[in-house]
Amino acid sequence: MSELLRQHIEKITPLTDKEFDYIFSHFTTRKYKKHQFLVQDDTAVQHDYFVLKGMLKASYITAEDGKEHILQFAWEDWWITDYQAYFNQTNATLTIDCIEDTEVLALSLFNREKICSEMHKMEHFFRRKSSFGYVALQKRILSLLTNSAEQRYQQLQNAYPQLFQRVPKTLLAAYLGVSRETLSRFSKM
Amino acid sequence: MSELLRQHIEKITPLTDKEFDYIFSHFTTRKYKKHQFLVQDDTAVQHDYFVLKGMLKASYITAEDGKEHILQFAWEDWWITDYQAYFNQTNATLTIDCIEDTEVLALSLFNREKICSEMHKMEHFFRRKSSFGYVALQKRILSLLTNSAEQRYQQLQNAYPQLFQRVPKTLLAAYLGVSRETLSRFSKM
Repeated sequence: MSELLRQHIEKITPLTDKEFDYIFSHFTTRKYKKHQFLVQDDTAVQHDYFVLKGMLKASYITAEDGKEHILQFAWEDWWITDYQAYFNQTNATLTIDCIEDTEVLALSLFNREKICSEMHKMEHFFRRKSSFGYVALQKRILSLLTNSAEQRYQQLQNAYPQLFQRVPKTLLAAYLGVSRETLSRFSKM
Repeated sequence: MSELLRQHIEKITPLTDKEFDYIFSHFTTRKYKKHQFLVQDDTAVQHDYFVLKGMLKASYITAEDGKEHILQFAWEDWWITDYQAYFNQTNATLTIDCIEDTEVLALSLFNREKICSEMHKMEHFFRRKSSFGYVALQKRILSLLTNSAEQRYQQLQNAYPQLFQRVPKTLLAAYLGVSRETLSRFSKM
């Protein structure tokens, strides 16, 4: 399973076997069952998670009405955590839980900073990942500002068709910010 | 004026005089008048801009109705460009123009990658900046998903009071995604 992480890093920077083994020694493998939590609201966030297998979601629960708003899905070859809490070492405002049985590689902030400081190429890898992530979030903000919910539904379906196979409609609605009923209307069109 | 860039980088990593001079040699100083464009829709994006003086906005114009949606403001000590176009070296989908007379330091992608590859500490600096930027955009997405326009107005005013002194109400409305009339209602409360 470590091969998935190696391929992922090598899309940005090549590694020797020795370098990869050293990097990999900073991760720990963890398995979770469907519905299990990786991050709970108002608790410390120790790790960033690289997904080997499964599907997760990061969500924010509105205090007033208990409504779930999904910030992010993650599946194989994606990273997920509560980044605000992780980078600032504060308590989580998000909850992260499993939509399927899941296997991840967990990286503590200490180990992330350690391998970045020891290996220029890992600093480079994470800079590139962050830059691409920043661009993706800017696109999502523009989409929220300028597109209708129906346009956002179509974009999501075109970009990530497998999401529609693996994730219940209720959760897609919570990601798009529409009701379950509105979503059903889109999917019939 | 180069002192502002040095202080900005040294918030994350200390530099010797020689290191800073070398880094600074990769930037070019540019001055623009109010209303002048730095980036125009559908043209190449050569530079990322660090603001020494002035105020700018990055916006997306909806093709159907010509409506302006503001993605970002930038002023002293901030960076701005069309990052999607800059990192991928594609044409701009945003326009960036000056709300005040402005002075910037421009950094080409070639020079950015050059100083990052030559100096581990600059790779570190840009990784940290990107990570913080990513967190800020996640917060904005959550705010768009969970808060009313009025709550977002209050948050903006609390976080950046100087923005309300320097930017016309019409532009604040285009950032918050509300009409000029709705914004006036908030500001009277």
